[in-house]
Amino acid sequence: MKLKIKQNVLMNYLNYAIRGVSSKNLIPILNCIKFELTNEGLYLISTDNEISIKTFISSNKIEKIESLGEIVVSGRFIYDIVKKLPGEIIDLEEVMDSKLYITTKNSSFTLNCNEVNDFPNIKFEEVEEPIIINNKMIRNIINETIFATSTQESRPALTGLNMKIENNKMECTATDSFRLAKKMIELDKTVENNINIIIPTRSLNELIKMVEDNDEKIELHIFENKVLFKSENIMLISSLINGTYPDTSKLIPESFETILSVNLNDYFNAIDRASLLTNESDKNTIVLESNKDEAIISSNIPEIGNVKENIKINNSKSEEIKIAFSSKYMMDAIKTFNSDEIELCFNGDIKPIIIRSKEDNSLIQLIVPIRTY
Amino acid sequence: MKLKIKQNVLMNYLNYAIRGVSSKNLIPILNCIKFELTNEGLYLISTDNEISIKTFISSNKIEKIESLGEIVVSGRFIYDIVKKLPGEIIDLEEVMDSKLYITTKNSSFTLNCNEVNDFPNIKFEEVEEPIIINNKMIRNIINETIFATSTQESRPALTGLNMKIENNKMECTATDSFRLAKKMIELDKTVENNINIIIPTRSLNELIKMVEDNDEKIELHIFENKVLFKSENIMLISSLINGTYPDTSKLIPESFETILSVNLNDYFNAIDRASLLTNESDKNTIVLESNKDEAIISSNIPEIGNVKENIKINNSKSEEIKIAFSSKYMMDAIKTFNSDEIELCFNGDIKPIIIRSKEDNSLIQLIVPIRTY
Repeated sequence: MKLKIKQNVLMNYLNYAIRGVSSKNLIPILNCIKFELTNEGLYLISTDNEISIKTFISSNKIEKIESLGEIVVSGRFIYDIVKKLPGEIIDLEEVMDSKLYITTKNSSFTLNCNEVNDFPNIKFEEVEEPIIINNKMIRNIINETIFATSTQESRPALTGLNMKIENNKMECTATDSFRLAKKMIELDKTVENNINIIIPTRSLNELIKMVEDNDEKIELHIFENKVLFKSENIMLISSLINGTYPDTSKLIPESFETILSVNLNDYFNAIDRASLLTNESDKNTIVLESNKDEAIISSNIPEIGNVKENIKINNSKSEEIKIAFSSKYMMDAIKTFNSDEIELCFNGDIKPIIIRSKEDNSLIQLIVPIRTY
Repeated sequence: MKLKIKQNVLMNYLNYAIRGVSSKNLIPILNCIKFELTNEGLYLISTDNEISIKTFISSNKIEKIESLGEIVVSGRFIYDIVKKLPGEIIDLEEVMDSKLYITTKNSSFTLNCNEVNDFPNIKFEEVEEPIIINNKMIRNIINETIFATSTQESRPALTGLNMKIENNKMECTATDSFRLAKKMIELDKTVENNINIIIPTRSLNELIKMVEDNDEKIELHIFENKVLFKSENIMLISSLINGTYPDTSKLIPESFETILSVNLNDYFNAIDRASLLTNESDKNTIVLESNKDEAIISSNIPEIGNVKENIKINNSKSEEIKIAFSSKYMMDAIKTFNSDEIELCFNGDIKPIIIRSKEDNSLIQLIVPIRTY
C-alpha cells in the first residue's frame, strides 16, 4: 500500500473511522483501523464488535495511488498523528516487516502494523429496499428520545431505542420506566414486513455525531440481528438488542382531566430555578399546583430554604391539579420541544404526565409523577 | 438588610465573592458569603481561611437601599439562584428568624441564614506604601511561572511562587525541582525593605481569574504572614507559605556551549508530535540531536513505533548536542514565550537546558534533562 493524500482529507475520514474504535477494548485488534487501498479509493474500517464503521475516500480525493494493499494499524495513534501533522500532503507507505511509514516534509513516523488477517471480516451487506429517512429527521428522532433510555443493564431491552415500523408509520420509543419519549413519523414508502427492533443507545450516540444536520438521505438496512445505516460518507453497522420491548401503547391516554398550556421558556426557567432547591437523593422532586390562570412550582430543602415560582397558564381544560415530579426529568423532556407553547396534560396526581406541543403531534413525552404522601 | 439591585450587577460581584468559597469546606460558615449593606454600598465577603475576598458594590450601582444590615448566607445557593434569575431587579430582604427573601416578579426564594457573629472577622488591612504593578503584568507573571510549581506537599515551599523584591527589582520563581520558571521585572518604585515571600499557587490561580487583562493597577500589600491584592473591584488576601525558598540563583549559567535558535511554532509542533510516541510512565522522554543547521527530535514506544522530526536551526553558537528531556515540560515552557524565535541553551547533556527569548530577557525557563544511559 502506498499513496499520497492531503492531511485534511484523510483527517475528515479518520474522524468517522475513529468512532468505531473503542477506547476501552482489551482486544488489541479492535483498537485498530483497517486501510484498504483499491483503484477506486481508500476504505477505512473499524469495529468493536457492537459497532462497525466503514468510510470511503474516492480516488479523485487522493493525490496519488502508487500501489494497492491493505494494512491494519492502531486507530488512536494514526488518528492523533494525522491530526497533529501540518496541512500538507502526507505519504503513507507500507514497508517490510509490516510497518507503516507516515511522512511529510519534516516529520516521519513509523507505526507497527497488525496482521491483516486477524482483523474481523465484517460484511456491510445491504437489503434490497432500505428504509430511507433524511438526516435531519434521524437526528431529531435520536435527540428527542434517547435521553430517556435506561442505563440499568438489568433490563437490557430498555437500554436501547425501540423502532417499530408498520406500513409507512415509524414509531420510536425510549423509556427507563420512570419516563418515556415517543416520536412518530411517516415514511415516504410502505414497508412490506413489519419491523420491531431495539437499537443500542451507544450506537445512536455515535451515529448522530457522524450525520450532518441537512436534508440528505440516510438508508436503514435492517436485518435479523443488526442494522446498517448508510449515508453518503459512512456505513455504520450496529448490533441489535435481543429481547422483547414492553408494549407502551396503552400508557398514553386519549383524554385528560387537566390540560395546562404554558410558554415553553418561562416554564423551563421556572423548573430550572425550582430545581436549585432539590436533592438528587430525593429524585429532584418539585411540586406543581395549578389554579385558574397560574401555576405555582415549589420545592424546598428544609435546612437550606424554599422557592416558589409563578407561571402564567392558558387553560384549555382545567381541573385544578397538585402533582409532584422530578425536575430533572421534566427539564430533559421540555428541551426536546421546539415551539413557543407546550401542553402539560394530567389525569390526577398519580397517573403519568404527558407533555406535548400543539403545533407538532409527532412527539410525546411522558413522566411518571412522584407520590409524596 | 433590605435593598433592590439589578440581577446583572449583583451577579458581576458574586462572581468575585464565590471564588473565596471553597466547595470542599467542611466548616459550614466558610461556605457562606457575608453581605454588609452600608450607606456607601454593599460589601460581599468570603473566606476559606487560606484565601479571603472582599468586593464592593457602591450605592450608585444599587437601585434602592431600604435598610442597612448584615447577613451571612450559603455562597453556592445565593450564587446559583441569582445566576438563574431573569435580568430584572431583585429584591433582597432579611426577615425574622434570620431568613433572606430573594424575589423577582415571578420568583420567590427563602434562604436560611447563618449567624453573622460566627463569620470570621477578617481584617483587610493595608500597608502605607504598597507595591504597584499593572494587571497585565501580574497576569503575565502568573501565567509564565506557576505551572512549574510543585504539587507535592512533602516540600511545601515548592507548592508556591517565590516573590523576591530588592530595590526596584522583582523576581518571581516557581520550581518543582525538575523544571524552573523565572520572571524578572522592574518596579516603578524602590522598596525600603527587601521582600522574600512564597504565595500559594491556588491563591494566584484564583487571583488571575479576577484580574482583567488591562493596564489598570493592582496593589500588593505584603505582611509577615499574608499578602493583600487590591484592585478596583476586589481585595484578595492570601496566606503565605512558611519556610525558606531554595536559592535558585546559581542554577542559571552565565554562558553556554551550545545555543540553538529555533522558530517557536515549528519547534513546538515538532515536540508536540514527537510526544505522541512517549509514555507518561517514561516521563514523556524525547531526544533532541543537533548537527550543523538542523535538529532531529525523536522518540519511540517500542511496541507501537517511532518518530523523527526535523527542525531548522539558526545556530548562534554550536557544539553538537544530543540530549533527552520531558516533552511535556518542554511544551509547558515554550508556551510561555510570545516571540517568533526562541533560544535553546545547553552545557552538555546533563546540565539544565535554558529556554529564553532574544527579544525579551525578563523570562527564563529551565528544564533538567533526563539521563537515558
